[in-house]
Amino acid sequence: MKAAIVMGSKSDFDSVKLAADALKSFGVETEVRVISAHRTPNEAHDFAVNAAKNKIEVIIAAAGKAAHLAGVLAANTTLPVIGLPVKSSFMDGLDSLLSTVQMPSGIPVATVAVGGGENAGLLAVRILSVKYPALRAMLREHADKMRAKTVADDLSLSNI
Amino acid sequence: MKAAIVMGSKSDFDSVKLAADALKSFGVETEVRVISAHRTPNEAHDFAVNAAKNKIEVIIAAAGKAAHLAGVLAANTTLPVIGLPVKSSFMDGLDSLLSTVQMPSGIPVATVAVGGGENAGLLAVRILSVKYPALRAMLREHADKMRAKTVADDLSLSNI
Amino acid sequence: MKAAIVMGSKSDFDSVKLAADALKSFGVETEVRVISAHRTPNEAHDFAVNAAKNKIEVIIAAAGKAAHLAGVLAANTTLPVIGLPVKSSFMDGLDSLLSTVQMPSGIPVATVAVGGGENAGLLAVRILSVKYPALRAMLREHADKMRAKTVADDLSLSNI
Amino acid sequence: MKAAIVMGSKSDFDSVKLAADALKSFGVETEVRVISAHRTPNEAHDFAVNAAKNKIEVIIAAAGKAAHLAGVLAANTTLPVIGLPVKSSFMDGLDSLLSTVQMPSGIPVATVAVGGGENAGLLAVRILSVKYPALRAMLREHADKMRAKTVADDLSLSNI
Amino acid sequence: MKAAIVMGSKSDFDSVKLAADALKSFGVETEVRVISAHRTPNEAHDFAVNAAKNKIEVIIAAAGKAAHLAGVLAANTTLPVIGLPVKSSFMDGLDSLLSTVQMPSGIPVATVAVGGGENAGLLAVRILSVKYPALRAMLREHADKMRAKTVADDLSLSNI
Amino acid sequence: MKAAIVMGSKSDFDSVKLAADALKSFGVETEVRVISAHRTPNEAHDFAVNAAKNKIEVIIAAAGKAAHLAGVLAANTTLPVIGLPVKSSFMDGLDSLLSTVQMPSGIPVATVAVGGGENAGLLAVRILSVKYPALRAMLREHADKMRAKTVADDLSLSNI
Amino acid sequence: MKAAIVMGSKSDFDSVKLAADALKSFGVETEVRVISAHRTPNEAHDFAVNAAKNKIEVIIAAAGKAAHLAGVLAANTTLPVIGLPVKSSFMDGLDSLLSTVQMPSGIPVATVAVGGGENAGLLAVRILSVKYPALRAMLREHADKMRAKTVADDLSLSNI
Amino acid sequence: MKAAIVMGSKSDFDSVKLAADALKSFGVETEVRVISAHRTPNEAHDFAVNAAKNKIEVIIAAAGKAAHLAGVLAANTTLPVIGLPVKSSFMDGLDSLLSTVQMPSGIPVATVAVGGGENAGLLAVRILSVKYPALRAMLREHADKMRAKTVADDLSLSNI
Repeated sequence: MKAAIVMGSKSDFDSVKLAADALKSFGVETEVRVISAHRTPNEAHDFAVNAAKNKIEVIIAAAGKAAHLAGVLAANTTLPVIGLPVKSSFMDGLDSLLSTVQMPSGIPVATVAVGGGENAGLLAVRILSVKYPALRAMLREHADKMRAKTVADDLSLSNI
Repeated sequence: MKAAIVMGSKSDFDSVKLAADALKSFGVETEVRVISAHRTPNEAHDFAVNAAKNKIEVIIAAAGKAAHLAGVLAANTTLPVIGLPVKSSFMDGLDSLLSTVQMPSGIPVATVAVGGGENAGLLAVRILSVKYPALRAMLREHADKMRAKTVADDLSLSNI
Repeated sequence: MKAAIVMGSKSDFDSVKLAADALKSFGVETEVRVISAHRTPNEAHDFAVNAAKNKIEVIIAAAGKAAHLAGVLAANTTLPVIGLPVKSSFMDGLDSLLSTVQMPSGIPVATVAVGGGENAGLLAVRILSVKYPALRAMLREHADKMRAKTVADDLSLSNI
Repeated sequence: MKAAIVMGSKSDFDSVKLAADALKSFGVETEVRVISAHRTPNEAHDFAVNAAKNKIEVIIAAAGKAAHLAGVLAANTTLPVIGLPVKSSFMDGLDSLLSTVQMPSGIPVATVAVGGGENAGLLAVRILSVKYPALRAMLREHADKMRAKTVADDLSLSNI
Repeated sequence: MKAAIVMGSKSDFDSVKLAADALKSFGVETEVRVISAHRTPNEAHDFAVNAAKNKIEVIIAAAGKAAHLAGVLAANTTLPVIGLPVKSSFMDGLDSLLSTVQMPSGIPVATVAVGGGENAGLLAVRILSVKYPALRAMLREHADKMRAKTVADDLSLSNI
Repeated sequence: MKAAIVMGSKSDFDSVKLAADALKSFGVETEVRVISAHRTPNEAHDFAVNAAKNKIEVIIAAAGKAAHLAGVLAANTTLPVIGLPVKSSFMDGLDSLLSTVQMPSGIPVATVAVGGGENAGLLAVRILSVKYPALRAMLREHADKMRAKTVADDLSLSNI
Repeated sequence: MKAAIVMGSKSDFDSVKLAADALKSFGVETEVRVISAHRTPNEAHDFAVNAAKNKIEVIIAAAGKAAHLAGVLAANTTLPVIGLPVKSSFMDGLDSLLSTVQMPSGIPVATVAVGGGENAGLLAVRILSVKYPALRAMLREHADKMRAKTVADDLSLSNI
Repeated sequence: MKAAIVMGSKSDFDSVKLAADALKSFGVETEVRVISAHRTPNEAHDFAVNAAKNKIEVIIAAAGKAAHLAGVLAANTTLPVIGLPVKSSFMDGLDSLLSTVQMPSGIPVATVAVGGGENAGLLAVRILSVKYPALRAMLREHADKMRAKTVADDLSLSNI
């Protein structure tokens, strides 16, 4: 099982780091790329067109401002594409969010929260788990750990 | 292969109709439900907890205003959950959109555009296609049809 | 008389501190909890369902981003639930505010300002004062003190 | 048990009608008034100052645009004040919502959704139920009816 | 000729400082007060009702968040009231701006930019200049100075 | 005493009608003009430069979208300029509001609500009343009438 | 001299009609096309890459929602690209506006107002006039006509 | 070939620096000016009216808040005017953006992103390239460099 994380600019690396970490912790092979819908449109086209052939099964696209990357990739592949809006310097990324989520009919992008890198990774895992049942058990474990952490926080507070 | 579409209120039916139509046109068995995170919280919990057991592989959750449905379902299942923000009477559904997409770390919701029923359905198909290769070919056909339609529109215009 | 303050994450502690302080200064017994609508949905359900039995008379729920906590608790109890939107990293908590206040018909949440911890506490006291007349006198004293403080500020300025 | 509903202008009547209906259906005596924070400031002051003496236990204040009514009333009484933002002609009432909910520290207003008349009424009932246990049972019945209605809607759909 | 500057909280002092400086530089006697629409509603009422009697001819009201001060003063006097929205911690004072400017018909507030202290002062001077012709000449001088400053900046740049 | 109302386009006439009516009802001579900051910049310049000479004492400027009219007039006169943001087809005139109210330091515009024609007129009267005491009495009468109307509405409701 | 107008969907035709009319009235040969960045990405690429070869000198790209068209074309040509945000069903096209104007560094799009079809056309003419001096004279005539129309509107009003 | 960059205030210099640098790197003679639509309206008028005579072929106008500069210049010249919204202290420059881009019909402004100095410069170059073919080749080179930089970033990442 294999995922790809594409960022529009190397400066988006911090935003995608959590996505990569999440995928890694679930044992998903992950290709991390810098491809820009605007500065390297041909590379974006070629990457998307060949993604399935290259065994990629789900794509995370992270971009900011007028964030066209996820939409452009989704237009050139039938793989599920997750859009990760990167926080821009304008209204905390409202531009990135709307440019990613408000896709016209026909070309869906699965959008997560602005700066939601970890959730982008976890969504990719959920999508892969449809095919790979082993991931389901791992997701349940992950949910249990989150639950345990919150319960521990709850207890720690009542001890104060 | 099987999907579920859950709407928070029967009045959201028009919003989810396009999602159901899209899934149907791809031959995906689809269960359509009315379950409210607020009015029927137990039903929401039970539905989500048992969804995988009931052979559901992807869930679309449509809700408006303070739209908690997708998040609540995602908290109780490891299946991929698609959030479809329904247009509310406030700022064209900005409340629905933010309540759906801005999920905290740990529980991702794959959000589509406000009122993006068709894309919710197509995203579900893309997700299922990771497991069911037959859907990939159908998605390519669908993309070809969209392309042909746009090309025809382009030609029709140059004839004016 | 007894109130509960529930926060979705331990990181929300600073936001609820002022609410707890306000309740304490009015002599209201206060249970402070960390319960997440998403990471510990069962705990959230159980807490809400049993709140009245546990002598809790009013609940303050603090959460950020797609803040479902107040709504989820309100759906599982008939106690008055006060929603305290925590400032998120997106548009100063517009997401938290709309996710908390824009509840659909049937399940009300009494929402205060983003980051309005003190007011959440004072609102809880006002609600309890309907039943406990002693609180009314204390609220009047509190109002007098605020008035005196502002009058003193006014005077200090005219002395400059 | 007694509530008051105050609207800033007679044109807000439709907005408060659902609040009045909700209170009536729970058997709460309700005084409905037209008092403007701006056009009748003295009346607003007198109403608030005397509300508790007049046996009023909770106040709903409905106003639009720069909606100061709830805040002005809350500044002159220690009763819980529910703010009902009326939909204005500007951004669907974003002005009403922010003018009502963003109260400074010290004077809380329990704000419901823009146009959330029914919830304003139900919140008043929840607040009164702290003192009047009979209302709790009625609220549970109300919740059961909502649940039954949603379950019926769910069934009706699966019959199609 | 006499103006008053009223701030809702002493913490707004920095915001009104520029207004006071502007009025001072035009030789306008200025009373600076701390009066809160919410914490000292009676003082606000009395101040506004007696402002004209106290020879005040124009009022600047500075407040943040759900900024009701300017509206409340304008409701209790026929003097022109200038609203100065103070930058709050929410969306850079969008709440202050809308609460101040979106006044319902009948009670106008002359609103300046969020944080526009200097302009609040200059607007007061323009208003007073309707009656006091000497101020007109001073305003022209002020405009000339601004012009000269900008022209000098322009020249300094071309010298680089 | 004399006011001018300037609209950027004849299509703004409905928006300024209430302002003209208000001024007329207070006996203020009013010049109504169509002058565009963009289509007739020279006329805008000349009008503003000569306004004081032409006995105009206060100006109302109504414009929509990127509403520069009030600012351009204020830059060319020392008279008080009232900005009336006209509702545009974008976000109910948020563009008009921000273009009018967010003036940089040095050139103030007294902004009223989007579509607040009547308040623009009443604000002009308040400003003129600084010089013409007769208007003060009329403003008090106007306030009394508004009060009486609201009181009557209040009574009419209690009779239902 | 030759311009191209590209719309993302035939349903955008009404939005671009005014642009086409403006170009026609200045005698600019105009190619009108339907090309979608998402449904016909290859056509979009080919159109942009070959635009200069096809004698096109300026491009207007009209699209709505997550409007990527102008950016995608600008990424594949060095011609000036004018972005015309089409009014969508979400917040009057705020999504279209931000997706068009907030381009990352390196790839500029000359954006006009939401629904600003006529201005898109006039901007194209201004750009072409840099090369074709005859257009400058026509633009001056056009400005004179606008001026005359506004002056006539001004006179017609003073005759009422 | 010659461009002009006009800023409303010397404090906007940092915002226009990137525009000036971009123009310089393409060998375009550039005049940099400080002219304010509000503080030096006559200078603004004269600059625009004489720009074409002074051999200027394209103008970049940078301003913040209620940014009227680009519109005022565009009203007084037929040259293409690029609007560069400067980030203000209010909502990251939403006021600057809307005041610049939402121009009424007849007077277009070619708007770039808030703070998009480099793109303002590059857009000016694209516009000039319609007339000066040498710039086209340089723009292609520039695009190639951007592409090479992104490809290098992509490679550097895969080496990690």
